[in-house]
Amino acid sequence: MVSAAAFEREFGALAAIGRHPVDAGYSRLAWTAEDRAARVWFRAAAAARGLTVETDGNGNLWAWPGPAHAAAVVVGSHLDTVLSGGAYDGALGVVSSFLALDELRAVGARPRRPVAVVAFADEEGARYGLPTFGSRLMTGGLDPAAVVGRTDPAGVGLAEALTTFDVDPAGLGADPQRLGWISSFVELHVEQGRALAELDAPVGLATGIWPHGRWRLTLTGEPNHAGTTRLVDRRDPTLPLAGAVEAARRLAGANGAVATVGRLLVRPNSTNSVPAEVTAWLDARAADDVTLDRLVTGWADEVRSAAAAERVRMSLHPESRSPAVTFDGDLTDRMAAVLAGQGLPSPRLPTAAGHDAGVLAGHVPSAMLFVRNPTGVSHSPAERAETADCVVGISVLASVIEDLACR
Amino acid sequence: MVSAAAFEREFGALAAIGRHPVDAGYSRLAWTAEDRAARVWFRAAAAARGLTVETDGNGNLWAWPGPAHAAAVVVGSHLDTVLSGGAYDGALGVVSSFLALDELRAVGARPRRPVAVVAFADEEGARYGLPTFGSRLMTGGLDPAAVVGRTDPAGVGLAEALTTFDVDPAGLGADPQRLGWISSFVELHVEQGRALAELDAPVGLATGIWPHGRWRLTLTGEPNHAGTTRLVDRRDPTLPLAGAVEAARRLAGANGAVATVGRLLVRPNSTNSVPAEVTAWLDARAADDVTLDRLVTGWADEVRSAAAAERVRMSLHPESRSPAVTFDGDLTDRMAAVLAGQGLPSPRLPTAAGHDAGVLAGHVPSAMLFVRNPTGVSHSPAERAETADCVVGISVLASVIEDLACR
Repeated sequence: MVSAAAFEREFGALAAIGRHPVDAGYSRLAWTAEDRAARVWFRAAAAARGLTVETDGNGNLWAWPGPAHAAAVVVGSHLDTVLSGGAYDGALGVVSSFLALDELRAVGARPRRPVAVVAFADEEGARYGLPTFGSRLMTGGLDPAAVVGRTDPAGVGLAEALTTFDVDPAGLGADPQRLGWISSFVELHVEQGRALAELDAPVGLATGIWPHGRWRLTLTGEPNHAGTTRLVDRRDPTLPLAGAVEAARRLAGANGAVATVGRLLVRPNSTNSVPAEVTAWLDARAADDVTLDRLVTGWADEVRSAAAAERVRMSLHPESRSPAVTFDGDLTDRMAAVLAGQGLPSPRLPTAAGHDAGVLAGHVPSAMLFVRNPTGVSHSPAERAETADCVVGISVLASVIEDLACR
Repeated sequence: MVSAAAFEREFGALAAIGRHPVDAGYSRLAWTAEDRAARVWFRAAAAARGLTVETDGNGNLWAWPGPAHAAAVVVGSHLDTVLSGGAYDGALGVVSSFLALDELRAVGARPRRPVAVVAFADEEGARYGLPTFGSRLMTGGLDPAAVVGRTDPAGVGLAEALTTFDVDPAGLGADPQRLGWISSFVELHVEQGRALAELDAPVGLATGIWPHGRWRLTLTGEPNHAGTTRLVDRRDPTLPLAGAVEAARRLAGANGAVATVGRLLVRPNSTNSVPAEVTAWLDARAADDVTLDRLVTGWADEVRSAAAAERVRMSLHPESRSPAVTFDGDLTDRMAAVLAGQGLPSPRLPTAAGHDAGVLAGHVPSAMLFVRNPTGVSHSPAERAETADCVVGISVLASVIEDLACR
């Protein structure tokens, strides 16, 4: 096993990038100075291990042991975070991948096929609303022409942002050759709930990912004076917004699902004005596609009624939709056997979070290894994993790589 | 009467400052480049009429006909706007004041006391949350020590902003000498409702201003992952926010009042995060103080319950409170007589909007003259007044000044 000190040294170097000095968390949004610094860290970590780094046409970073690419075992995750997110989401998977290679080298393992470390670009989609950006482009699941014109909230175009990272917007898109090089993909990730804590297990295996998506709701009323406009004369978009928030929670509960309105924009956002327009984003996830559709359709119907009652115009635009994912059974069984070999339990759990492994699962054998999160908090500065559990996770990942690459 | 062309020329010059090229309205927030340009316009308008301009210690602009200040008739309004506001709010009163002086000069009127034009600083409070800033400071209704440390949403301190306008933060505060110079104050203003349109009257007189205030609501929950956090584990501040919006409307209706939640800040404001915190501002106005208190207390109780149900922490901070205002009866009667002399009806109406005239009303005889607004829309780019009505308003204002200053 790698030492706790070795883990904390490598992990701490990455976590320091984009960390708020007090308590506002970790912010490494895609194609920002923080993303650039994290990529510098990746290059240094790869170079220290004699690996060669390349950036693919979609901005994903790859560290290879040499020129041979085919039939590779690929491990990794992502370097970006949500705004004010946690230290472990994404970062733990990339750091663990490098440290697992160290562990294999320390025991003299001799891989018979290449083992590569990947950091997929913009997994969170926190800046351009395009989660799993790099992996979906690579697998052909995202049409570059449909998204390259997007701008971030500050008005910076995606194409412009990519160019500053030497990613040619014209070169984005499906990369079947690269996909063909991957014999299996394993992503280690901090758990984003409390299932492992309740099971008293340091690590666990993912069965699959709930289908999920994002919908942008625009409610357009009429701007007016907050003091002089009679209630009956108002067309106030905050009223149907309130209904949308309430309905999302209620319908999620009724469907055994989750739904969140976590992002709002109000225009003009002035204390003494009835707003002209409110934009809200719905994030919804359910155990299967039929349930998710029922939830979102029912929600849209309720919001439409609430908007009509206030003479507010409503439009709903699906921004992304990820189908249900089932991870590779054979690969997950092999990982369970590795866990059993180390005397560890191998609980299996579904997740409602999207991951690059979920995107790859439709194309190459993919699996996920979760590390226990004592509080279950995620996408927050309070997200945590014990170093001891991280070290166990790295050790398991090393054994899985050995099983896949050395036999 | 001044010509429509003369009105449109002078009004158009001011309206062009801070006007969005397409449809996002008029934005001249206090102590910005647009405010500075509007003040340059004021100086030019005053200079063209041989008036001398001074900035008082609170940043208010005054144009005087000469060195004698005492027992003056003061007319005017403000130059600033809300974000994306209308062209007429404030601006019409200042432009009309200068044009009324032109009209008096054209008929050879000889004032026996000084007639001054004022533009009060930061009437809207759109940047620092301090409406009627300049008039409240002058009358001692706002304690400078309590507010000078404020920052705007971009983090610029009020003291710093004032300094760039050569207003010394240490010199802010009550100015009884200047207040003593004012024998009467008349503010012409675009109406902010449809009462005059329904009465078919080009102008009207204000009876008073409803008591009103602003309250800042902070709802603090726990940031978390929007996909992986179970509904029962959430402490989501958007749920009590939804309740706050709905309750504000419902309780306003029940109390014959108005209440608006027009400004929201969500942190971190990320699509796939349960927010950590929501800040919302309540703007509430009612016919009397007892009703306003009942409305806000009832609202706070409901929001507190909704927050507790979601294990969200709630705090409520009153940002401003303006008591009920009754305008000077004698002055308003004199204005009604002027209207009758011109063969015009003189409808009287209350308003729920704050005005500098309302602040001054507690100290010097003050009154307001409203100009018809065909749509009633206000604080919006759609705010309008017909030029013909504005010209009538200017003519009435000129007659009122003549009545007050020449007899």
